[in-house]
Amino acid sequence: MEIICVGNELLIGKVVNTNASWLGKRATSLGINVKRINVCADNVEEMAEVFREVIARKPNFIVSTGGLGPTFDDKTLQGVAAALGVKVSVNAEALRMVKERYTEYARKRNVPEGDLTPARLKMATLPEGTTPVTNPIGTAPGVRVDVEGTVLFVLPGVPIEMEAIFEASIAPLLRVASGDMRFYEKSVFADNIFESYLAPMIDVVMKANPFVYIKSHVKREEGRPHIELHFSTSDKPAEHPEVKVEKAAAELSALIAKAGGKLYASSPGALDVP
Amino acid sequence: MEIICVGNELLIGKVVNTNASWLGKRATSLGINVKRINVCADNVEEMAEVFREVIARKPNFIVSTGGLGPTFDDKTLQGVAAALGVKVSVNAEALRMVKERYTEYARKRNVPEGDLTPARLKMATLPEGTTPVTNPIGTAPGVRVDVEGTVLFVLPGVPIEMEAIFEASIAPLLRVASGDMRFYEKSVFADNIFESYLAPMIDVVMKANPFVYIKSHVKREEGRPHIELHFSTSDKPAEHPEVKVEKAAAELSALIAKAGGKLYASSPGALDVP
Repeated sequence: MEIICVGNELLIGKVVNTNASWLGKRATSLGINVKRINVCADNVEEMAEVFREVIARKPNFIVSTGGLGPTFDDKTLQGVAAALGVKVSVNAEALRMVKERYTEYARKRNVPEGDLTPARLKMATLPEGTTPVTNPIGTAPGVRVDVEGTVLFVLPGVPIEMEAIFEASIAPLLRVASGDMRFYEKSVFADNIFESYLAPMIDVVMKANPFVYIKSHVKREEGRPHIELHFSTSDKPAEHPEVKVEKAAAELSALIAKAGGKLYASSPGALDVP
Repeated sequence: MEIICVGNELLIGKVVNTNASWLGKRATSLGINVKRINVCADNVEEMAEVFREVIARKPNFIVSTGGLGPTFDDKTLQGVAAALGVKVSVNAEALRMVKERYTEYARKRNVPEGDLTPARLKMATLPEGTTPVTNPIGTAPGVRVDVEGTVLFVLPGVPIEMEAIFEASIAPLLRVASGDMRFYEKSVFADNIFESYLAPMIDVVMKANPFVYIKSHVKREEGRPHIELHFSTSDKPAEHPEVKVEKAAAELSALIAKAGGKLYASSPGALDVP
């Protein structure tokens, strides 16, 4: 799977890309491997280029976020259409979804529903040959595109809307596609040891535990480095991956203790720090 | 400029990519346009592919983060070497930097300096034809690569090290490259108005203020949408861009007020909310 996030606010650092980390975590937990995250501007040519490139790499899934709303800078569907080489036109099913939402808002807040303005019509204007996907809590529907064996979902950028569409319409598909793989992880924290001394120990433990991926993360607090060791694997529950992860963590912990390192079950700063 | 962030932890959503937002914000504030952020795994072939693609797009600058440490999964310099089609070898200047850092650590903490292990030597092993860049606070030097008119900086992923190298060695270059452009921004918050009604108002104000970019962001709290309107421009201080931003904000605020929308100088939840 690849992720595409559209939005100038991400490029100028006004917004931290929590949509990408949320999607990465959820897809990983469903046993799907996320290979790349691509962030680009609210510009039709630039996003068309990104969509074209990502589609050409033929991932099983692509999920994009951002640029589906009613304002002029919401251009993702134009970008997708340009990437696919198709036109956009009003989609009857999407139009029904958008209208329904405004009727609901008007009833709830006791305000006039208002006209189907060009800005509202815009949210029902999809690349031809694509399918709207219900947005359980917002106005702009998501869009599903099937292209060259890849399933592309185009989602809005508002986090709770993006998450709601993902859970309702995408997560079940990913779980089936992964063959019910799950992601298991564990962290151990170490201090009083150079990361450069840890490197050969990690090599030894990874060779003895080929299904477990170990990554060290240096964290600095109050001028002293401490290291998080993160153990992870993706596997079917029946293969007892949690046992494999625990075994690797225990082996590396023993090597660190032998070399004089201090170990913590959680990050220093938490309760178990001496 | 483009940003490349290397690290499985970003793809599995274990870590939120604050390095990208920090770099995006700093580069933007220095008048540099960030066009893309690319995130990839700790895998030599995959990162080589990303570096090759980004170099082929010929941005003025590329800044990468992550994968410069001593452990096996720190592979960015191998990825860069593969992208450039060169070998890696021990760089004398980088080796001096790494040694100096371990001497310093040992003195400060009163521990043995230790040998120049393969893991330590690794941090001084650079793609041939590249230049180490001083890391003011950590062990692994950054690396500067000049390739096809692009200046590529390869930085570590530990935020305070990445930021320190950026401020010391990259920020001054970016300021010169942008011709002392600066970034100006202002936000206005609105409520009691549909984003779809705002869309045509934003169109009018953007046409009257062609140098100011306006973007609306929907934020949901307690089930009611409220909208942030973000006004920004990049310009030389002598052109008084702050006046242009204020003028656009005032014009749009007037239109919103006329349509019955409520305006706030800061986000609802802050002090000025009625």
